[in-house]
Amino acid sequence: MSEKLFDRVALIGIGLIGSSLARALRRDSPGTAIVACARRPATLATVRRLELADETTEDPAIAAAGADLVVIATPLSAYAEIGRRIASALQPGAILTDVGSVKQAVVRDLQPYLPAGVHFVPGHPVAGTEHSGPEAGFAELFDGRWCILIPLPETAPEAVAKVGRMWERFGMRVITMNADHHDKVLAVTSHLPHLIAYTIVGTATDLEDSLKSEVIEFSASGFRDFTRIAASDPVMWRDIFLNNREAVLEILQRFNEDLTALQRAIRWGEGDKLQDLFTRTRAIRRSIIEAKQA
Amino acid sequence: MSEKLFDRVALIGIGLIGSSLARALRRDSPGTAIVACARRPATLATVRRLELADETTEDPAIAAAGADLVVIATPLSAYAEIGRRIASALQPGAILTDVGSVKQAVVRDLQPYLPAGVHFVPGHPVAGTEHSGPEAGFAELFDGRWCILIPLPETAPEAVAKVGRMWERFGMRVITMNADHHDKVLAVTSHLPHLIAYTIVGTATDLEDSLKSEVIEFSASGFRDFTRIAASDPVMWRDIFLNNREAVLEILQRFNEDLTALQRAIRWGEGDKLQDLFTRTRAIRRSIIEAKQA
Repeated sequence: MSEKLFDRVALIGIGLIGSSLARALRRDSPGTAIVACARRPATLATVRRLELADETTEDPAIAAAGADLVVIATPLSAYAEIGRRIASALQPGAILTDVGSVKQAVVRDLQPYLPAGVHFVPGHPVAGTEHSGPEAGFAELFDGRWCILIPLPETAPEAVAKVGRMWERFGMRVITMNADHHDKVLAVTSHLPHLIAYTIVGTATDLEDSLKSEVIEFSASGFRDFTRIAASDPVMWRDIFLNNREAVLEILQRFNEDLTALQRAIRWGEGDKLQDLFTRTRAIRRSIIEAKQA
Repeated sequence: MSEKLFDRVALIGIGLIGSSLARALRRDSPGTAIVACARRPATLATVRRLELADETTEDPAIAAAGADLVVIATPLSAYAEIGRRIASALQPGAILTDVGSVKQAVVRDLQPYLPAGVHFVPGHPVAGTEHSGPEAGFAELFDGRWCILIPLPETAPEAVAKVGRMWERFGMRVITMNADHHDKVLAVTSHLPHLIAYTIVGTATDLEDSLKSEVIEFSASGFRDFTRIAASDPVMWRDIFLNNREAVLEILQRFNEDLTALQRAIRWGEGDKLQDLFTRTRAIRRSIIEAKQA
């Protein structure tokens, strides 16, 4: 096997992404010691049962102590408190990274606590499923997917490169971006689609009972695809929307304008407008197939 | 092989559904003669090349003459004209059915032309892909999916049963429903999801070019699922929205209210409201998995 990536990795938060990362480290960097940290003892019991870590702890400071890589993989609302608690435990030269789906908020919440000599590399492996928890993870989750790293002006390029090499070893394509741009792109590709899916599934949940059971039976005609997305982790997604508020509200405003225009076209029987849009959207699908993301 | 379903089936319109039906008939009812009708000579040339029919014609009346089953499988906007043209060619005792995604409009457009002695069984095999045209069809398209039949007060039960047996032989589960109820259920499960998907992909198409290319690269994070739906046939979908206007506008209004409430919760940082909804929607996904529609 190839060289050991890190000596000791602390995974603070060990759900779908954290546990997939643990499995990928086990597979591709067997010499690396893994410390898993979670708030709930039941989660840590699962981690021990699945043998995902060499040590487990409920205290993020204990996890971070002595680690040359610390990965925060909790919902975003826990970051500031974790930053405060691990600050004095981080060893000089350690790299702190994360896997959160929003990046400006992560910089805002963690940077104030960073001691000198610690390298901060915010990251976002753009991968996931609608399942959550340590049992839902798998090492192949990262295969062929993008990982976005956010180098800050003060981040040492070697630290960014080292984190990038880790994700590349797990099969990811790594690129860098600034936090503001990341949050705008993901608002369109991920946050708005999830918000819409949650809404439409919620709308269906509120239907009269007779209609609701049939919606479930006939879900394969389009609705089903939305229910998969709308089954994603509730706390994680609550935090994403609260922490990427501006970019989400901005793209949602555009979406609303476009939907209102379509609604009006339907009401007034303007078939040409509908057909024009539906023809344009077909082209986007082709672009995605060409970009090998389909 | 089992008994022949019909002696002579006329397929008026031979795109994804019509050509899948032709293939399923070839596979499961080899003694049945198939006549394919399309407006464009190029489509019929493809049908001949793929050997999907025994005869081809551009004239729906020629196709319908002598058929004991006539299936209309064109976009909805062509129905009234087809009804007018085939009326005098339909033989007594023949069954006329269709595969359209809206049913009240189909009854409205076809019933005025029906001669006495012809059995009218509006139908909707709820199956499809984002691809279209005779080359996109395949016999297995109907496997395990629902087919909804709409018996009218004057329809002979034997005619409904006979059409039902055909779809069942192709692997479908057949149920009956009235046209009004069908249109409401499909507005929720299919028409609204498609409208939303078309809108969100359209919103992304209008982004600045730099952002647009990244939206394509990072589409796997949620957006991609919408682009598949939004690649569906533009004319077919234009006609669905124009012909199921009331039910679509009604459910769209509910969706809009729900989306506005979520937008407000994000703006004011009301995390509890978001988390409550996201938890409820997860349960719907579980219902779909239990109904074996996932």
